[in-house]
Amino acid sequence: MERPRHQGMAKNTYMRWRLPLVCLLWEVAMIVLFGVFVRFSPEADAHWEEEKREMNLTSDMENDFYFRYPSFQDVHVMIFVGFGFLMTFLKRYGFGAVGFNFLLAAFGIQWALLMQGWFHSFKSGKILIGVENLINADFCVGSVCIAFGAILGKTSPIQLLVMTLFQVTLFAVNEYILLNLLHVKDAGGSMTIHTFGAYFGLTVTRILYRPNLEQSKDKQGSVYHSDLFAMIGTLYLWMYWPSFNSAISDHGDAQHRAAINTYCSLAACVLTTMAFSSMLQKKGKLDMVHIQNATLAGGVAVGTSAEMMLTPYGSLIVGFICGIVSTVGYVYFTPFLESRLHIQDTCGIHNLHAMPGLIGGIVGAITAAAATEDVYGKEGFIKAFDFTGVYQTRTPSVQGGFQAAGIVVSLLMAFAGGALVGAILKLPVWGDAAAENCFEDDIYWEVPEDEESDAYHMHNPDKPASP
Amino acid sequence: MERPRHQGMAKNTYMRWRLPLVCLLWEVAMIVLFGVFVRFSPEADAHWEEEKREMNLTSDMENDFYFRYPSFQDVHVMIFVGFGFLMTFLKRYGFGAVGFNFLLAAFGIQWALLMQGWFHSFKSGKILIGVENLINADFCVGSVCIAFGAILGKTSPIQLLVMTLFQVTLFAVNEYILLNLLHVKDAGGSMTIHTFGAYFGLTVTRILYRPNLEQSKDKQGSVYHSDLFAMIGTLYLWMYWPSFNSAISDHGDAQHRAAINTYCSLAACVLTTMAFSSMLQKKGKLDMVHIQNATLAGGVAVGTSAEMMLTPYGSLIVGFICGIVSTVGYVYFTPFLESRLHIQDTCGIHNLHAMPGLIGGIVGAITAAAATEDVYGKEGFIKAFDFTGVYQTRTPSVQGGFQAAGIVVSLLMAFAGGALVGAILKLPVWGDAAAENCFEDDIYWEVPEDEESDAYHMHNPDKPASP
Amino acid sequence: MERPRHQGMAKNTYMRWRLPLVCLLWEVAMIVLFGVFVRFSPEADAHWEEEKREMNLTSDMENDFYFRYPSFQDVHVMIFVGFGFLMTFLKRYGFGAVGFNFLLAAFGIQWALLMQGWFHSFKSGKILIGVENLINADFCVGSVCIAFGAILGKTSPIQLLVMTLFQVTLFAVNEYILLNLLHVKDAGGSMTIHTFGAYFGLTVTRILYRPNLEQSKDKQGSVYHSDLFAMIGTLYLWMYWPSFNSAISDHGDAQHRAAINTYCSLAACVLTTMAFSSMLQKKGKLDMVHIQNATLAGGVAVGTSAEMMLTPYGSLIVGFICGIVSTVGYVYFTPFLESRLHIQDTCGIHNLHAMPGLIGGIVGAITAAAATEDVYGKEGFIKAFDFTGVYQTRTPSVQGGFQAAGIVVSLLMAFAGGALVGAILKLPVWGDAAAENCFEDDIYWEVPEDEESDAYHMHNPDKPASP
Repeated sequence: MERPRHQGMAKNTYMRWRLPLVCLLWEVAMIVLFGVFVRFSPEADAHWEEEKREMNLTSDMENDFYFRYPSFQDVHVMIFVGFGFLMTFLKRYGFGAVGFNFLLAAFGIQWALLMQGWFHSFKSGKILIGVENLINADFCVGSVCIAFGAILGKTSPIQLLVMTLFQVTLFAVNEYILLNLLHVKDAGGSMTIHTFGAYFGLTVTRILYRPNLEQSKDKQGSVYHSDLFAMIGTLYLWMYWPSFNSAISDHGDAQHRAAINTYCSLAACVLTTMAFSSMLQKKGKLDMVHIQNATLAGGVAVGTSAEMMLTPYGSLIVGFICGIVSTVGYVYFTPFLESRLHIQDTCGIHNLHAMPGLIGGIVGAITAAAATEDVYGKEGFIKAFDFTGVYQTRTPSVQGGFQAAGIVVSLLMAFAGGALVGAILKLPVWGDAAAENCFEDDIYWEVPEDEESDAYHMHNPDKPASP
Repeated sequence: MERPRHQGMAKNTYMRWRLPLVCLLWEVAMIVLFGVFVRFSPEADAHWEEEKREMNLTSDMENDFYFRYPSFQDVHVMIFVGFGFLMTFLKRYGFGAVGFNFLLAAFGIQWALLMQGWFHSFKSGKILIGVENLINADFCVGSVCIAFGAILGKTSPIQLLVMTLFQVTLFAVNEYILLNLLHVKDAGGSMTIHTFGAYFGLTVTRILYRPNLEQSKDKQGSVYHSDLFAMIGTLYLWMYWPSFNSAISDHGDAQHRAAINTYCSLAACVLTTMAFSSMLQKKGKLDMVHIQNATLAGGVAVGTSAEMMLTPYGSLIVGFICGIVSTVGYVYFTPFLESRLHIQDTCGIHNLHAMPGLIGGIVGAITAAAATEDVYGKEGFIKAFDFTGVYQTRTPSVQGGFQAAGIVVSLLMAFAGGALVGAILKLPVWGDAAAENCFEDDIYWEVPEDEESDAYHMHNPDKPASP
Repeated sequence: MERPRHQGMAKNTYMRWRLPLVCLLWEVAMIVLFGVFVRFSPEADAHWEEEKREMNLTSDMENDFYFRYPSFQDVHVMIFVGFGFLMTFLKRYGFGAVGFNFLLAAFGIQWALLMQGWFHSFKSGKILIGVENLINADFCVGSVCIAFGAILGKTSPIQLLVMTLFQVTLFAVNEYILLNLLHVKDAGGSMTIHTFGAYFGLTVTRILYRPNLEQSKDKQGSVYHSDLFAMIGTLYLWMYWPSFNSAISDHGDAQHRAAINTYCSLAACVLTTMAFSSMLQKKGKLDMVHIQNATLAGGVAVGTSAEMMLTPYGSLIVGFICGIVSTVGYVYFTPFLESRLHIQDTCGIHNLHAMPGLIGGIVGAITAAAATEDVYGKEGFIKAFDFTGVYQTRTPSVQGGFQAAGIVVSLLMAFAGGALVGAILKLPVWGDAAAENCFEDDIYWEVPEDEESDAYHMHNPDKPASP
């Protein structure tokens, strides 16, 4: 397993004390903070029985758990299996893809429960959590999984944990600005999750630019079965995206509508992705990279507007456009970003999350600006945009303006935060691999002996076999 | 990658302009038709707030979304992961299996929303869609996925899209005849989905008969890991089938009962499949083909009767029989169909869907004919069979007769429709591959270089390596 | 495929008549017993309509189906995909892992419906089943899947069926003693499922000790892609465990709370597993075996207490400890158990289920003993522990004592039952393989020719190729 390395490039990737230290200390910190701050929301607390009577609730069925738990589980699958397996497409980085995604997400949801809790669920000194908080924590971590896609294969697990710590923090701040200060709607997170997460990740990978990355070029591709593993991730993301976009919408028609809009957008997106994947390749063959990724752009792009009266055909149009934009991005933009802007984007998150996220923010702004009492009904109109209290006098066009402002804020937060975090990750203490060892599980994982060496010799027939 | 081909057999499989053209034009057509016709059902519309008050509904929880959305998501997984991965068993057609299934299903659900909408949800010029429509669209596409199983590996993506267009149309007509004209019960689709879909697909593959298919015999088998990928499909179909058969049943006890009956039938089916798989093989070894497919026959065969008072032991009996019939089918009928009737059935849908579908129709007819007020209760009896309005006077035995008529109609529609569509697909313009290139992803997909050539040379050691 | 075997070790693994006979006879027995005993519960029966009116239920939504069906489906996935794929990590036993798990679980759920039904749902001569019974049957089979993990690769399918028959029976007896006689709470089954299942399996594998097992040492490892298949199992178990621990809790806040506690415990467990996996390996690399298994220990260990007021930080602490205990177990205890105690534990269930199960029982006892009306509320306190009827006067500390007694009873049942069943399985009639053929699908399965022989020769370059 141990192979000679270029003297000059040798880097210390030894994790034995660093990784355990970070994991254990941070988890102890979580326990302390949870102990001080986190309690059950009334609906998850045994006291609920009495509160329920006061609230005149007729049934346990009214517990938010039954409105949201199935959607929560779908979102949970998207974060861990969806993102995890989507990134297993690399021939020799499957362990890192699914394993590091597991690690960062497991840490991230705890930290997100705290950060989001302080901003949104803080009552008399305690954070009260219920199923909606679990969904929001998963959402927040989703933005970290997106950023992970840009730096996949090039960072150590410690770097990923550090990035998660900062990104979750910044996510919560950005989300607070958007939802609470700007009073913006973004139930499916086109802006808060996708735009923010993607441009954050792209900025980080720009700062971590590796000029010699072509040294591991042979490992940046897929093999036949790794592409099939990745399709597991793709399909679970695609199938459950209607749950993602509807998970925290208002009970009833809003959840219902958000699921339908997302279903439509995703369906249209598949057809234009296939069309352009074939059209942009000389031999007219389909490219698995596009099918694995661009088919999902339609879900990203209705994240803001799915719970609004976007209508099924409006959703089809958005999906139609995003399949094209995303596929074109893989063919033309990704190589351009790498060669000209020095942005090495392993999974092409620019095409799957950044551009569709921006489109999603814009579509949301337009849909909000175009809202009328005629379409939403008098009550529905107020409910859909929460035009109550201090926002009672806000008009749809003003709301559209604030939605647009939300995009700008998310972008700024992403660039500034990504620059800061990128700079921190550049410190030479985190144990990242040399360029020639990127995209290689062997650095951080025990890899089964025979398979590994078999594969190694197949791909490097000129190198001598290890004993 | 480019290998010399037999001169005489050379076929033009170039997709570059044909596939994009079909995908884009058809998707534009979808957008136009959705724009003209499709709107949200009241329960998904923001206006709902006001209607709800009129209907005296006590809670958002009464929204059909909460009755059906978890089942919808399970059905969705069956269509995309279940059928998609079930067909990845072929050693070199995994991309086509999961990718083309993705394509045809994504198009099919849109077209199904329209076709089924015109027949069933058309009100004052608009199709009003809600979660039940999404389930029905997935169901309709399920019948196309079944037919795809018969022609897997032998058709171009354009042929699959053309087949989808026609089959969805015919499905909707057949469904209308059964459910509305004959007033037949078929919540899990033994007749409308399985019998129709399977005999349709078998007719198509009969017409597309390829006399030289043994030229790609070496690619018709599985490899070790492709069989494991296929088991992902199998297990998701098996586990979620109770959701499939109960997804559109009446709220309450009917959904509950349908899930239990299906659970029981499927459990019994696994044991008889294992028994006969071992028994029918000389060395007594189990065959993955049987485990992957015949274990599911029990779900197909209670599709009609699961929501009726079939009872758990009745379900066990149906599952018991179908495991046997299906496994015997794989061992004896499939070779017979190919050699004598020239029906080349790649996945053996005759054993998994056609025969069990017929059994399901018959079991449904018998169960309906045997219904009594004693068993169902006075109200339950009327509710279970919708014996209201013009059907107020229909007796169980008459219902049984109509159920049987439903089987015949489905068969006729399948044969006629399959013949028509088969003839269309035989036109030499759709870009299907030559017999020697069937079951080969390389024709329509970019396949990773090294793995592909490695595998190629392993399997064809006498051919020279590509440079 | 047929290779010469050591003369002295030759064993008859021919299944052709034995396996079908067992499967068919037992399934016929199930049908007869279901016919005599099993009927629908009122909520799944068509008669329900009338009963509902009597019970003054306002809506179909009150049907238990809607409270529990989504959780049921998650549990179902855990049993069939979770356990099935978790065990596919072996390089040449994937078919056996997923296929035999499928077989034993499909039989087990039927037998469990009967056994648990006689104890818990027996009314006027009939077992009345609904969705909660399906969940409990899956739970019961879960304990068999756990035991299967200890003997994976070393037993014939008939042995597995025999073990299932006995273990389900003993499970039901143990569960009856705990839940009904001791009035113990154990909604997530730390004691009934994990402690019982694991120590049962460990006792069985001790009795089936194979001194020459190192003859198949080369097959006891994984290959790169088999480790990825196993991660599918891991992630589904991890993601759906909150559903597992909350599936049969009381409606409302108890289900809600159980899900949150489990979510927290599992998240913490991932971090300590990663930390210790890296720390305990000289090179500091992560070991897939730990990630695949020890990350789940946190779910096991809150099985009893998740529905109690364990609180989120309490859950984090439990998860923190169990990730460490379990990982340390894989590194130090498993080799010790094998070399000193002759316990050959293929999947390391001692680390994933036995120790965390014990911890779970103890945590449950402490949490129950520490309960106060102050924390639970007056009503919530009585409801949480069912302190009604004859148990009206039971105090929390007495309840804690009974909980502890439940652990002891489960252990005794496991040791006694495991010894009995181990002795039965030792009879030389069940067709298990010789030591040299363990962990080898080829014995009981048709394995695809080329892949199998390719792999075989790669791993055994000194043996001559089969023709």
